[in-house]
Amino acid sequence: MADKINTLFNALANNGWQGLLVTDPTHIYYLTGFASEPHERFLGLLLVSGEEPVLIVPALDEDKARESSSVSRIVTHTDTDNPYELLKRFIGGSMDVFAIEKEHVSVARYEALSTSVGAQRYEDLGPVLREMRVRKSADEMQRLKHAVHLVEEVLRGGLTHVREGMTEVELVAELEYRMKKLGADGPSFDTTVLFGAKTAMPHGEPGTKKLTPGDLLMIDMGVYADGYASDITRTFAFGSLSPELEKIYNTVLQANLAGIAAARPGVSCASVDQAARAVVEAAGYGPAFNHRVGHGLGLGIHEYPSLHGANEDPLVEGMVFTVEPGIYIAGKGGVRIEDDVLVTADGVEVLTSFPKDLKILA
Amino acid sequence: MADKINTLFNALANNGWQGLLVTDPTHIYYLTGFASEPHERFLGLLLVSGEEPVLIVPALDEDKARESSSVSRIVTHTDTDNPYELLKRFIGGSMDVFAIEKEHVSVARYEALSTSVGAQRYEDLGPVLREMRVRKSADEMQRLKHAVHLVEEVLRGGLTHVREGMTEVELVAELEYRMKKLGADGPSFDTTVLFGAKTAMPHGEPGTKKLTPGDLLMIDMGVYADGYASDITRTFAFGSLSPELEKIYNTVLQANLAGIAAARPGVSCASVDQAARAVVEAAGYGPAFNHRVGHGLGLGIHEYPSLHGANEDPLVEGMVFTVEPGIYIAGKGGVRIEDDVLVTADGVEVLTSFPKDLKILA
Repeated sequence: MADKINTLFNALANNGWQGLLVTDPTHIYYLTGFASEPHERFLGLLLVSGEEPVLIVPALDEDKARESSSVSRIVTHTDTDNPYELLKRFIGGSMDVFAIEKEHVSVARYEALSTSVGAQRYEDLGPVLREMRVRKSADEMQRLKHAVHLVEEVLRGGLTHVREGMTEVELVAELEYRMKKLGADGPSFDTTVLFGAKTAMPHGEPGTKKLTPGDLLMIDMGVYADGYASDITRTFAFGSLSPELEKIYNTVLQANLAGIAAARPGVSCASVDQAARAVVEAAGYGPAFNHRVGHGLGLGIHEYPSLHGANEDPLVEGMVFTVEPGIYIAGKGGVRIEDDVLVTADGVEVLTSFPKDLKILA
Repeated sequence: MADKINTLFNALANNGWQGLLVTDPTHIYYLTGFASEPHERFLGLLLVSGEEPVLIVPALDEDKARESSSVSRIVTHTDTDNPYELLKRFIGGSMDVFAIEKEHVSVARYEALSTSVGAQRYEDLGPVLREMRVRKSADEMQRLKHAVHLVEEVLRGGLTHVREGMTEVELVAELEYRMKKLGADGPSFDTTVLFGAKTAMPHGEPGTKKLTPGDLLMIDMGVYADGYASDITRTFAFGSLSPELEKIYNTVLQANLAGIAAARPGVSCASVDQAARAVVEAAGYGPAFNHRVGHGLGLGIHEYPSLHGANEDPLVEGMVFTVEPGIYIAGKGGVRIEDDVLVTADGVEVLTSFPKDLKILA
């Protein structure tokens, strides 16, 4: 943790900032070890050049912060205090340039804090933290791999529960129950289970639709474990599929493999998307693959980098992201196959190991 | 839905705005019926004076938006499009004053959209939506009451599962499983189950601590049902309690009742907090009640109003909020008792009906 705070102090010096404020709870956790969801209450880690870092926390989280935070200078505010007054007290003199997380701070908060901080200019701290987060450390990889392991156990166990006539939400309940039982912190996003033609909606919501022979069954889920997220999608056949759906399945599988094969340090994010998309386009389904091929994964379920066709940023060793092409045909169904991969020195390590050949469940 | 859009058009006219943009997914749902979690993708409802409203959605959510949105002019953007260019196209000419949700729009998004919108000034749309949301309609109350009913069923069922030696996370898994089985959309926040001295942490996290005779057992949870949230806390005794913990329990119960009794239209939010706090202070535990007495509830789990000692805003008929005093003694334990109440014409209706007398579970 101390290393990370030092990196931030270096960023202060290198960018000519006199101070910076971290407000994203995920980043507070990353930097101090204190995990908290403050809702609308103010939570911030303040670094001022030459001063000891200060963690500003809601009073009701004080004990938890003292237990878990590596930053030991902790100040609290109650629900009737004005946290921006507190901020002002620790900032002291006037600031020329001050850094905030522009993607996290709302305009309303910015207006409030800028009157307290009173800097001449506000710069974005986001890229510094993004750069720190993008290369996963050995400790982070251990936790990420554990999150992947857990979600695959959940999937394996959950499949034994699949029965004709069960509803999508019943299967969601079963899967999320297993997540908790296995010790995950919880789902890393709303668990998606879709049956039949509903699989054609990439963001469809599980409902009371019943599982029927001939249905596709799509499961897209992940867990948080020790702060890190996993994310996997598998699509199954419940009974035999039409030749068209089988063709779609195999096309998506080839696209998934092509995307993975294209990934290595130095190639662009776009090229991973393009490699997968070329397979889908060659099979005549181009427009039916209506989303990017993947997204970064780590402390967040969707983090940098975004693997879409216009992102020329290069992959670097230590990045973790998903590869998840899909084909969606309204009224018929959709298939998506999603793996999590780590960029290694010369390629990728595929973290998810759940089989991808078409599995017929009934 | 059309009524709500009209209210927004009236706000445009009354405030001298030429246009406004809604970006909070909760408000998009409230105004159009389209429920979506776009993550980092752009989702917005644009109203320009004299023009038909436009809903801008990620391409992969197009089908779902067309199915559920009352706004029928839907435009989509893919992951490689720049949604702010799209915005610019629908805004057309130059704007003098444009309204955004300042509590929802990040500084980064503001910088991007302000170059597209190019208005002279940006005002806050937040208060207009807050005013609309604060008085719950009959339809909203029906959904809210259903969410309360579901969480109380979950609590009743979950208690039958409580056993000596079980862990906090096991009970969380059981409760969340019941939520799904009963048809809730899911928990409205991370379900909190704490045993023994851990109950002294208002935001403590469930872990692998085992339930032991003499423990306090605190459950704080809620569900989302049809978009609306419930929120309840009950604290139980697992076996007999020390006289001090019993005294604390009864003090919190009296504080909860005093807070509820103080609430009616026209009195301040602060006075509800003060009524509950006075009971706690009289018993000598003032500093151990380290949070506000409650928060608004509805589409959000924490929404306006905030019931703290410095909020002089008056209660109005149709408001829904929690009343949840607590006393927390480090190393010993804590008690919180939380109800959801609706402000009526002359007092409140308590929506939660789960018994509050000290219940000894073993």
